[in-house]
Amino acid sequence: MSTPFVNRHIGPDDQQVATMLDRLGHPSLEALMDAAVPKSIRSTDPLHLPDAVDEERAAAEMRAMAGRNVPGEPMIGLGYHATVTPAVIRRNVREDPSWYTAYTPYQPEISQGRLEALINFQTMVADLAGLATAGSSLLDEGTAAAEAVALAFRANRLASGPFVVDADALPQTIDVVRTRAEGIGIEILVADLAAGLPDGDVSGVLIQYPGASGRIADIKPVIDAVHERGGLAVVAADLLALTVLEAPGALGADVVVGSAQRFGVPLFYGGPHAGFMAVREGLERQLPGRLVGVSVDAEGRPAYRLALQTREQHIRRDKATSNICTAQVLLAVTAGMYAVHHGPDGLRAIAGDIHDLAGRAAASLRGAGLELVNDTFFDTLQVRVSGRAAEVVAAARAEEGHLRLVDADTVGISFGETAGAPTLRALHTAFGVTPVAVQPADGLPPALRRTTDFLTHPVFNTHHNETSMLRYITRLAHRDYALDRGMIPLGSCTMKLNATTEMEPISLAGFAHLHPFVAAESADGYRELIEQLESWLAEVTGYDRVSIQPNAGAQGEFAGMLAIRNYHRANGQDQRDVCLIPSSAHGTNPASAVMVGMKVVVVKSNDDGTVDLDDLRAKCEQHAGTLAAIMVTYPSTHGVYEETITELCDIVHEHGGQVYVDGANFNALLGYAQPGRFGGDVSHLNLHKTFCIPHGGGGPGVGPVAVRAHLAPYLPTHPLHPDADRREGTGATSAAPFGSAGILPISWAYIRMMGAEGLTRATAVAVLSANYVAARLGEHFPVLYRGESGLVAHECILDLRDISKETGVSVDDVAKRLIDYGFHAPTMSFPVAGTLMVEPTESEDLTELDRFCDAMIAIKDEIDRVAAGEWAVDASPLANAPHTSRALVGEWDRPYSRELAVFPSGISPDKYWPPVARIDQAFGDRNLVCACPPLEEYVE
Amino acid sequence: MSTPFVNRHIGPDDQQVATMLDRLGHPSLEALMDAAVPKSIRSTDPLHLPDAVDEERAAAEMRAMAGRNVPGEPMIGLGYHATVTPAVIRRNVREDPSWYTAYTPYQPEISQGRLEALINFQTMVADLAGLATAGSSLLDEGTAAAEAVALAFRANRLASGPFVVDADALPQTIDVVRTRAEGIGIEILVADLAAGLPDGDVSGVLIQYPGASGRIADIKPVIDAVHERGGLAVVAADLLALTVLEAPGALGADVVVGSAQRFGVPLFYGGPHAGFMAVREGLERQLPGRLVGVSVDAEGRPAYRLALQTREQHIRRDKATSNICTAQVLLAVTAGMYAVHHGPDGLRAIAGDIHDLAGRAAASLRGAGLELVNDTFFDTLQVRVSGRAAEVVAAARAEEGHLRLVDADTVGISFGETAGAPTLRALHTAFGVTPVAVQPADGLPPALRRTTDFLTHPVFNTHHNETSMLRYITRLAHRDYALDRGMIPLGSCTMKLNATTEMEPISLAGFAHLHPFVAAESADGYRELIEQLESWLAEVTGYDRVSIQPNAGAQGEFAGMLAIRNYHRANGQDQRDVCLIPSSAHGTNPASAVMVGMKVVVVKSNDDGTVDLDDLRAKCEQHAGTLAAIMVTYPSTHGVYEETITELCDIVHEHGGQVYVDGANFNALLGYAQPGRFGGDVSHLNLHKTFCIPHGGGGPGVGPVAVRAHLAPYLPTHPLHPDADRREGTGATSAAPFGSAGILPISWAYIRMMGAEGLTRATAVAVLSANYVAARLGEHFPVLYRGESGLVAHECILDLRDISKETGVSVDDVAKRLIDYGFHAPTMSFPVAGTLMVEPTESEDLTELDRFCDAMIAIKDEIDRVAAGEWAVDASPLANAPHTSRALVGEWDRPYSRELAVFPSGISPDKYWPPVARIDQAFGDRNLVCACPPLEEYVE
Repeated sequence: MSTPFVNRHIGPDDQQVATMLDRLGHPSLEALMDAAVPKSIRSTDPLHLPDAVDEERAAAEMRAMAGRNVPGEPMIGLGYHATVTPAVIRRNVREDPSWYTAYTPYQPEISQGRLEALINFQTMVADLAGLATAGSSLLDEGTAAAEAVALAFRANRLASGPFVVDADALPQTIDVVRTRAEGIGIEILVADLAAGLPDGDVSGVLIQYPGASGRIADIKPVIDAVHERGGLAVVAADLLALTVLEAPGALGADVVVGSAQRFGVPLFYGGPHAGFMAVREGLERQLPGRLVGVSVDAEGRPAYRLALQTREQHIRRDKATSNICTAQVLLAVTAGMYAVHHGPDGLRAIAGDIHDLAGRAAASLRGAGLELVNDTFFDTLQVRVSGRAAEVVAAARAEEGHLRLVDADTVGISFGETAGAPTLRALHTAFGVTPVAVQPADGLPPALRRTTDFLTHPVFNTHHNETSMLRYITRLAHRDYALDRGMIPLGSCTMKLNATTEMEPISLAGFAHLHPFVAAESADGYRELIEQLESWLAEVTGYDRVSIQPNAGAQGEFAGMLAIRNYHRANGQDQRDVCLIPSSAHGTNPASAVMVGMKVVVVKSNDDGTVDLDDLRAKCEQHAGTLAAIMVTYPSTHGVYEETITELCDIVHEHGGQVYVDGANFNALLGYAQPGRFGGDVSHLNLHKTFCIPHGGGGPGVGPVAVRAHLAPYLPTHPLHPDADRREGTGATSAAPFGSAGILPISWAYIRMMGAEGLTRATAVAVLSANYVAARLGEHFPVLYRGESGLVAHECILDLRDISKETGVSVDDVAKRLIDYGFHAPTMSFPVAGTLMVEPTESEDLTELDRFCDAMIAIKDEIDRVAAGEWAVDASPLANAPHTSRALVGEWDRPYSRELAVFPSGISPDKYWPPVARIDQAFGDRNLVCACPPLEEYVE
Repeated sequence: MSTPFVNRHIGPDDQQVATMLDRLGHPSLEALMDAAVPKSIRSTDPLHLPDAVDEERAAAEMRAMAGRNVPGEPMIGLGYHATVTPAVIRRNVREDPSWYTAYTPYQPEISQGRLEALINFQTMVADLAGLATAGSSLLDEGTAAAEAVALAFRANRLASGPFVVDADALPQTIDVVRTRAEGIGIEILVADLAAGLPDGDVSGVLIQYPGASGRIADIKPVIDAVHERGGLAVVAADLLALTVLEAPGALGADVVVGSAQRFGVPLFYGGPHAGFMAVREGLERQLPGRLVGVSVDAEGRPAYRLALQTREQHIRRDKATSNICTAQVLLAVTAGMYAVHHGPDGLRAIAGDIHDLAGRAAASLRGAGLELVNDTFFDTLQVRVSGRAAEVVAAARAEEGHLRLVDADTVGISFGETAGAPTLRALHTAFGVTPVAVQPADGLPPALRRTTDFLTHPVFNTHHNETSMLRYITRLAHRDYALDRGMIPLGSCTMKLNATTEMEPISLAGFAHLHPFVAAESADGYRELIEQLESWLAEVTGYDRVSIQPNAGAQGEFAGMLAIRNYHRANGQDQRDVCLIPSSAHGTNPASAVMVGMKVVVVKSNDDGTVDLDDLRAKCEQHAGTLAAIMVTYPSTHGVYEETITELCDIVHEHGGQVYVDGANFNALLGYAQPGRFGGDVSHLNLHKTFCIPHGGGGPGVGPVAVRAHLAPYLPTHPLHPDADRREGTGATSAAPFGSAGILPISWAYIRMMGAEGLTRATAVAVLSANYVAARLGEHFPVLYRGESGLVAHECILDLRDISKETGVSVDDVAKRLIDYGFHAPTMSFPVAGTLMVEPTESEDLTELDRFCDAMIAIKDEIDRVAAGEWAVDASPLANAPHTSRALVGEWDRPYSRELAVFPSGISPDKYWPPVARIDQAFGDRNLVCACPPLEEYVE
């Protein structure tokens, strides 16, 4: 009986829509869309989706689905462990929009809170790993390991021979590493390292520490051996075990990877979790993904920002060696906060309790006459039960405990933070043994007990009472600008509403606490949710099959390109390895193509921003026998519905190529056009754009891959997927069978509450809003590209190049000045340097759109004053933006007033104050500091 | 396996405790407490409480208890209705510490956010009631009605005759009104108003609109009749019905009361909910409770603050006519936000849907041959089922629907926001009828359909999309200072940690959505929780019985004093009506005594702040035959453990009086002394102080009353309590049998996780911290009172009177200057004018205590500069505090720097900026505006 959700999600109400249409001179939304969307791609049938339900009903359905999952006590291990998210972190980070609605910290001045939280994460990882530098998270342990393998090759181009992978590594890690290594031509050799490193040339080694079996081997001899042969040593480690085991760095490891899941991040049926990577000194510039560093601001104070951005694929394109783009910020923040909350002693105590429990289990099982496979262990045991393994696992399941079925004779038990005496009792029942009082066994090899310090920085030793912890979290949150404060008009990022009803279910126990490798019968709710979501995504995209395994957009691209490559191979067309990519493409596209072993050939753009079809034809001819694919974004990254997209697809198909339609801009298509129908063979979607998963301050993302039927056999598989034995395939692209399953309820809820009509209206309003902004701002800044109708799609590019040339005011200046006006900047210099790309989305109402346009117009007026010579550009409020409160209290020798500096749109008690002034990016890269700086640096 | 909760709750860790002890020269906490707490009251036995459990275990136990309540579809009505809290409000208000950890807005400069939210509530109530002014919430509908009866008498002292109460009023309202009226000597006559006003003198009338039976009578004739006879007309109305029924104010009502529960506040098994009262022009100065008004700040801008504070009992003491102190701010904020979220059209639509459903039920039940008691209705029907009522109610319960058993032949059905087609189907099953397609009946009398406008202010017509709503909530939250920012060292208010694990369970469906009048079998979880909590509270206080019915401290006082009065009467001692109250008592004490019909006699204090026992003896002698009681706070409001408390109790007992020990300061006793053992006959506790229920920005509170066995028969009863038929008693003091049941899990969790040892340690650390602050600040400000040991209890009074006299710097100046330093002020001028009372609580760690002490010492230094003539007091940063960001950008002609103004403790990006400057209290009272001001007032 409540207002339809569509009216809560879409910002402009009917009256505001009418006002905007009026401004654009279109009589209705449908008329606007008829004019904007090319007829050749326009869908004719309505989408077949279930009728929209209200928020209460959707919430009830999700509770019911969650209730059909059986989390129980998860003791399967394999990189996923029970953990307790401290309630203060759950409520004030994971469930707080100030954290989860933030964008990636590309604008560091408004991101100091999460940047500090991330540098805590980096410090924590580096400390525990015993290495110099850690990045601010990777997608999961499996891909972190794959990235490490690639890094080892990059860093060490002289090495030859296969890359050796520990046979006792996590099975999904082995699979992901194989999948990823193959594309870039690295040979993988899986070997039992208990016998030492295999003979011959090796280019590197990946050691699991402790092993998947629970065994704790001394890794130093293998590390030394690989070093002797010129290779690099990568250690995949368990962070919690490292609180009691010697740091791999201290034992010589070059790279340490792993997952920070068990630091307070729910199991989530596999994800999202923060993967991590730490490297020794000298390798920091090789780190894939994001790295937070300390620099200084214009007032000379330390300030955080993303360091070494030049490494990233959006700069290096097909020279990039990783396509990683999204990180797992929200989860990395959670894990870092977990360490802040517990501190080194608290973490040691948790690890000690877990090890003690494992020791008691080991002793009592041995006491009952059972044999353990390993003598050493931290939290994981393997028990020999000669033929009874399935029976024991089933018996445990009856007690709501999930054990690992290693093989017919062996059962694995892993203990996590939630286990306790009742867990032991249930285990005894499952194994059918009678416990006897015995001393707990000690599974930690004395030589490997940790002696090195960690987490000595004050931040990990201060906030152990909840009051202090709450205030620390709040303080950091208040430093940042997220969607809870105002619009984030980032072109290509689709920063729309992340509705509370979509967000709440991810905290339900049934969704949050399920281990990814439980038996299918314990995951019935997830099965239904995933099947429905995959089928709905297939329906809206017009494809035949969808896999939600890829846990980021770039992963979806990789999976999609892999499908194309494997399809060609299966057809005996191994030689097809050329991927055409228009010059306007996002840098991730060429990086992904390279990762599957393709060669990138760039297709030119016309002056109007469209793909040059003549050049396309010529390139197709030129590479006729080797053409594998084209990767094209639609609408293009220029924010325009190109009329020629169907012709483009036809040309590529005629030459034997497959068409990859990048779904980053799907928010402009949903309900109006289906890439699977207008010529695409494969697409990925960004659920964190079109389908409301929040950006989390820079992740998690979900990047499902959608394919036509002929590519379906080449979708990602997974060695531990419930139907793994029934499917041959391409291998795993993510560590978990269903990727970031834990946040899929968000997108499920969005589709369920919007229905076909609501989703279609959202698209139209997104396009309306972009055109409204283009119309208002077009009078002040040139709009770079428009479609044939004169309309843009869901975003528009404002061209500042002439303005910058004439006045010296840069896009950076405008972006930073917007902070003073209370806004997050639009996307800067993508896809065209010197421009700003604005995407308002359907969730911003007219009041906010106008507030933004007013700010941009006022800034244009400031630029005009620079142009008129009233202010020198360097002395202008533009070049000095953003203005801090600190600046106000000192001497004021600027040619403009304090009021204009900080209250350019009027004095307001609700002003957002940036905590730092403009940050010097280059200084930070020259003086790389990527761990918590000493507190003294902050003393006034 | 986590850190014990006690270490999360208590701020100072072992090392900090040692540092503080060292400063005080005590070797241990126990030694300190031995010195501080008089031996005569010291407990010898440890508390018998269950062993502490960790947070996860406590959460699991609460989930299990919640799971044993059966909320189902609540259709009992009687003032409690199913409602949907919009998720954006649930997450960002009810579950957000920035709202729930705030204090009462006595410091308006740091409370503008919740004051705006409250003025929205006031505007909403006044609009819907059709009256000039509404207050910012009362405790519940029953007490609001009782307050209205008292108001009618105050406002109209010439009226004579009984006060007539509608026989169709809510049964609990009738009971509460009777209980309250009796004490102040008002005769209540319950009459069927369908027959018109009874003949003869009447002093006023209370009409229920619509009636408890669902009937909608034209109330105008009765209102006119009572006016003709010189009485006032009070209408108890349903806010949602008022969106479709004509406003009582338009029909002539003088006062409208009710509950805002169904505006998005969960049923909570009876509370907390926001009661409300609106009055016609001319009565606004008679309003009980708090009233938010608009005034101006020192910069000439509109600003909110509490208006007409001189009406309140803390000023008027025994001249007060109400003891209401706590309001229901968090719930009033929620209800106001619900109206902001839905707007007038949305509310009309919800009401329309509900009425339509009732109409369909009416038509189909009639169509099946059943008779309805009334032809008119909004949401409630009564159905005649000749002898089958219990059977039908049971059948409905089997379908998880709760109906009202009116009598053996009649069933009541009330529809709420969650009802729908499935509800109708379940009803048909329960009544055993086969539905036939019929037109829904219209139950709204055409003459009473609403024609007057409501909620026309922009705030109710702007934020209907979730993005805008989220930002509005966030914007208001950012304006305020709550515990999530820093210490709130309010003496007597015990602003300690409200831990997340304590807070989370109140959102569980089993606790949140249960109707207060369900059958006992559907409330088994609550039964257990309440029984345990009452028994634990009895144990810690040393009393024999506890009732958690009183939903505020003042209610607990009233209930306790009522018990004493009724005990005397039962013993034939009706003449015992003198209540002794020490001069230092909180103003609520005398107000409560007066409300039960007692006369207040003040007992003097000695110069050292202790009760003057000689005067006490003299007063006891003087009133020997009529002595009813003494009300004494322990430790005294002076923050001192008086050594003579046992002697005091003895003296009063010897003279036939009962001893009421006010438990406001119980945080200094818990685990060390039990009022029920050292001489008290009755006490109330403030669960929102000692037992961690958050202050919610000014409520909810819970004020259980604890008594020795001889007073147990006189505890509150309730006509709809599960055992109502087995207990005779004093009558109801709250509208719900278990008061604010919905927040009791918070205190339950606190006790469960702390255990006896933890609670005892908390007390000791609270005392330690207060003494540490007294020691550090005592060097700069005189500490007014200390115990014989030289120690204070859990708080200390800083005496600024000489400083003010010498320098002109007032306590107000110091309080406001603390805002610039990033603190909430201590309690001002209570219990002694010209002083500040500091209560640090055990939850603030040493870092925060020192930050506070440093700020106070720096302020003292500023005062010294005034004293030295460096600054004129009016030009000093003290008199001009707090400083806003707006002040920084204008001309600066002050004798101190901008930096000293806003960053007196150093430049920090984390500064809290007060949204307004010092507020002119008198201006607002002279120019009373208590509704949303037009937006133009805010234009720069």
